[in-house]
Amino acid sequence: MSGLLERINEPNDIKKVNKKEYAKLAKEIRGFLVRSVSKTGGHLASNLGAVELTMALHLAMDFPKDKLIFDVGHQAYTHKILTGRKNHFETLRAYEGLSGFPKRKESECDAFDTGHSSTSISAAAGLAAARDLAGEKYRVAAVIGDGALSGGMAYEALNNIGGSRSNMLIVLNDNQMSISENIGGMAAYLGKVRTNVKYVEFKDDLEQTLRKTKFGTKVVYGLKRSKDSIKHFIVPSMFFEDMGITYVGPIDGHNIELMVRAFKTAFAANKPVLVHVVTEKGKGYEYAKENPSAFHGVDPFDIKTGKGLKTLKEKSYTSVFSDAICELAEEHEKITAITAAMPQGTGLDAFAKRYPERFFDVGIAEEHAVTFAAGLAAGGFSPVVAVYSTFLQRAYDQIVHDVCVGELPVVFAVDRAGIVGNDGETHQGILDLSYLSHVPGLTVMAPRDATELKEMLSFAIRLKKPVALRYPRGEACEITEPKRLPLVYGQAEILYEENEIALLAVGSMVEVACKVRTLLREGAYRVSVINMRFVSPIDTDLLDDVAEKHRVIVTLEENIHDGGFGEKVAAYYAECGKKVQLKNIALPNHYIEHGDPEVLREKYGLTAEKVAEYVRAFYRGN
Amino acid sequence: MSGLLERINEPNDIKKVNKKEYAKLAKEIRGFLVRSVSKTGGHLASNLGAVELTMALHLAMDFPKDKLIFDVGHQAYTHKILTGRKNHFETLRAYEGLSGFPKRKESECDAFDTGHSSTSISAAAGLAAARDLAGEKYRVAAVIGDGALSGGMAYEALNNIGGSRSNMLIVLNDNQMSISENIGGMAAYLGKVRTNVKYVEFKDDLEQTLRKTKFGTKVVYGLKRSKDSIKHFIVPSMFFEDMGITYVGPIDGHNIELMVRAFKTAFAANKPVLVHVVTEKGKGYEYAKENPSAFHGVDPFDIKTGKGLKTLKEKSYTSVFSDAICELAEEHEKITAITAAMPQGTGLDAFAKRYPERFFDVGIAEEHAVTFAAGLAAGGFSPVVAVYSTFLQRAYDQIVHDVCVGELPVVFAVDRAGIVGNDGETHQGILDLSYLSHVPGLTVMAPRDATELKEMLSFAIRLKKPVALRYPRGEACEITEPKRLPLVYGQAEILYEENEIALLAVGSMVEVACKVRTLLREGAYRVSVINMRFVSPIDTDLLDDVAEKHRVIVTLEENIHDGGFGEKVAAYYAECGKKVQLKNIALPNHYIEHGDPEVLREKYGLTAEKVAEYVRAFYRGN
Repeated sequence: MSGLLERINEPNDIKKVNKKEYAKLAKEIRGFLVRSVSKTGGHLASNLGAVELTMALHLAMDFPKDKLIFDVGHQAYTHKILTGRKNHFETLRAYEGLSGFPKRKESECDAFDTGHSSTSISAAAGLAAARDLAGEKYRVAAVIGDGALSGGMAYEALNNIGGSRSNMLIVLNDNQMSISENIGGMAAYLGKVRTNVKYVEFKDDLEQTLRKTKFGTKVVYGLKRSKDSIKHFIVPSMFFEDMGITYVGPIDGHNIELMVRAFKTAFAANKPVLVHVVTEKGKGYEYAKENPSAFHGVDPFDIKTGKGLKTLKEKSYTSVFSDAICELAEEHEKITAITAAMPQGTGLDAFAKRYPERFFDVGIAEEHAVTFAAGLAAGGFSPVVAVYSTFLQRAYDQIVHDVCVGELPVVFAVDRAGIVGNDGETHQGILDLSYLSHVPGLTVMAPRDATELKEMLSFAIRLKKPVALRYPRGEACEITEPKRLPLVYGQAEILYEENEIALLAVGSMVEVACKVRTLLREGAYRVSVINMRFVSPIDTDLLDDVAEKHRVIVTLEENIHDGGFGEKVAAYYAECGKKVQLKNIALPNHYIEHGDPEVLREKYGLTAEKVAEYVRAFYRGN
Repeated sequence: MSGLLERINEPNDIKKVNKKEYAKLAKEIRGFLVRSVSKTGGHLASNLGAVELTMALHLAMDFPKDKLIFDVGHQAYTHKILTGRKNHFETLRAYEGLSGFPKRKESECDAFDTGHSSTSISAAAGLAAARDLAGEKYRVAAVIGDGALSGGMAYEALNNIGGSRSNMLIVLNDNQMSISENIGGMAAYLGKVRTNVKYVEFKDDLEQTLRKTKFGTKVVYGLKRSKDSIKHFIVPSMFFEDMGITYVGPIDGHNIELMVRAFKTAFAANKPVLVHVVTEKGKGYEYAKENPSAFHGVDPFDIKTGKGLKTLKEKSYTSVFSDAICELAEEHEKITAITAAMPQGTGLDAFAKRYPERFFDVGIAEEHAVTFAAGLAAGGFSPVVAVYSTFLQRAYDQIVHDVCVGELPVVFAVDRAGIVGNDGETHQGILDLSYLSHVPGLTVMAPRDATELKEMLSFAIRLKKPVALRYPRGEACEITEPKRLPLVYGQAEILYEENEIALLAVGSMVEVACKVRTLLREGAYRVSVINMRFVSPIDTDLLDDVAEKHRVIVTLEENIHDGGFGEKVAAYYAECGKKVQLKNIALPNHYIEHGDPEVLREKYGLTAEKVAEYVRAFYRGN
């Protein structure tokens, strides 16, 4: 008797569902989401929270004609279900499967690719402007969470559309948290709006006020007709109104009919309208509701217990970092730690617990995070900004302008560097060597294993210069032999020194290089393995030496080729006129799709076997 | 009888001036600024507006103990005068002279280096946090203009400090414009606050409200004592209060005593306080007051007439772009143009006038500008974002994530690429080849001269792909011979083909290469000159050919070496195993100080003479 969901096979099919069955359909969608994500992994809590909201948008809009943009985008699963992609969920986030984010290439119902936070209002404003200029008549809507609203871009967009005569709907999906707890003045403000129950008493007055405008009348009328409207109240939000954005809300984000009316009314206005809906993250699945942070992005899990089915054999790099910074902070009281809304993801949660005064969660606001850290450094502290490689892109200017021009000792702990996997194009950490290693005054390092990450973090903090330390997602390896050499500024570490083939490896590729050496030695090749340690500055003495002693040189990195480590090495040799036989093994210069990291590494030739094969052929050819 | 200013030689000397003489001192400072900037050039209108404001801050603070951060920083001249740097103004912005921006290396009274917009609150928040953690007791203040407040970072910072218990003063210097007219909801809101005179009638009520808190009482008391307070009024700003920031204002930004009291009171609070002061840009110098936009940044001028003393012989690249986009838009109706608050600077003012509906000034908000353009492109338009090289840094993530991942046809007209000169480290456009040319999916081009800029703009728009087109500040040259070759995607243009030395030049360096060729031919060298046209993708067929035919290859670019064009060329040769004698001429990998562009090019070896000398030596050595 599953019934309803079976009838949803194409865009707009939801409109054929009887109103009385909305709740049943929502329940079926939730069941589908939990079952599906329990098998594939994916984003769960945010999707469970946005079921009715997405249904209401689909009832108020026409796809693919209308344009709907999900901020961040990981909450678009229901949108995918409602636009004919239900049957692809078993391939969710797998290689060549359904993307976990909206993708224009995947469906014409996806109006704009998203992934990073706080971009949706800007993109929607652009689409709305295009529509108006072309004299077309479609609807444009952006769905943005209260967390993403702390990103400056969202404010830039609100500021820009304030007072505009171009219609668009902004749905503020307020679930009272970003990935973890929400932070800052705006969150406190929304909290006040949500709980300020005394406004209920003034409801009639407010309705009178709203009636003064044609638009207001429609809203009030729309809401009055709903049998549930009595439970809701309308608070004119001075914040948004001050910005010139008409505000409606807060309304129950699980009441479909109420939302449909609010959305339809909003679409009829000749200006931007923000509808504030309150939703519950994880709704409908007990474990996700109780612990939405843990069920934000999940690996496959057991539905009955809520427990993950995968366990890491080794500690992750994140948890190695987490332990290391806590230990270092014990003796070094100037260490402070900054995150942009990801205390769990970056492993700073332990630090936050142990050193609450030295911990700063600034909300989803990477730019502010970096310049705030620069301020701390100017005030004599040793700030460590822990951030994912892909999100640090947003603070490129701040790294240059606020940290490096002033030579302030900020350490960037760049997590999720390299292939991240299932989140795809917008989340891979494959650009950081390119956008960081050319920055004047910035030292860029990458550890070969868990122990070296600890050593490098300590070294970076003691260095008193701007440093970026990049390490990958997932389990941290431990390369137990040969014996470690002391960490010296700008110097690589020679692990094995032979004389035919030199493998120059960065970070996670050192382990691969060691395996490649083992494979190649079976063929009696003599292989040196170098752990570069520093990508900027590069160890040119070592490069000179390597060139003297080897017939071929191969560089290894998990970053795109252009602007990366290998290109630097190649350029160095060419510029000093050294004739070398050199190959750079790196990712190709395009965005890397979603898929299991191991599948992607295999495809792009970064596994030990693939590298060994490649090196063998290259050596034979020279 | 100039008198007063002569007594200001060290930090805090202003405190010895009698209150009755403040107005006289302000007048002397204005006279000094006008005289000084009329000779050296520099930022004028903003500095004239901030004289009393800066004096008041100096009266309420102690330097260098206290920390004062000027957002953007070009309005810090009075601060420099008041901290012992008066006698260096004749060297303002000249090579090795006084910087036009705050510099920690220049004075211990400069708390933080600024240059780009909207960073000051973040940096001040970091300093305030450092102070509190260290248990120290100094004051922290940020001065931010209403224009800079449209930058998202400023909002991220306000959001973060909202509700904090850490004191800092934010002075909102509201002169009702950024560099040009102010844009957006916030500007409209501030306008409302400024002019909402009916609040004056409620003054006593509001005072009662304020008195309810200890802090409020102080403010009211402070303002009451001032004989001028009657002219002012206090409007509780819901916008800032909603964010958890105590708001005081708006008050007259030319009334020193009133501001001193407000600032002192604000410093006594245990939370962040925003004091909103209204100032007049260009105050005290008629021409600047009438046309603050023209007197924002000026070359030397005649005080009596307000007319500039320098005239460009040729059209600037900016004006070539300005004409070109207007012409193209005539026949191509999908062309739209976007600026982040710089219609004049980027030359889009003409477009704005001619095609007001297709023109978008989004305020100081580069991130939003880029994603908004991506939205326009997704809606079928051909947006051109005109922006300075250094400011585009702020939108690196948006270029990658919102434009290039989705392959949206946005054209970036990157003005002020290369050495910009007198504004120094934070304004040179010397990183764009490094941060743009590795971006997957982005085509990067640079025109050799005025005509080629026009051709490339047209080409870029027709290409329907993401393109960045970089061109320098200043006069556009015209290379009249040899005959131009048609523009073909990814292909370089061979200007002269000989067989000893190949000069591979990017953009503005093509003209230099031609001059170098002339100089070298005097020594009977046979020199090829290649206009690369494309930095990404690079013309590898040409590189192969060049390597076959020449003994030495020299690359030329006005960008830092690392991640730049030369490095790409060098890496290409090394990776394909071609033995070449190659030198990259580029800027060194550090930030370039302020100074006249020609002085800097001479210093860094980018003039034709220097390059010729270098190439000669290199050729002889090989």
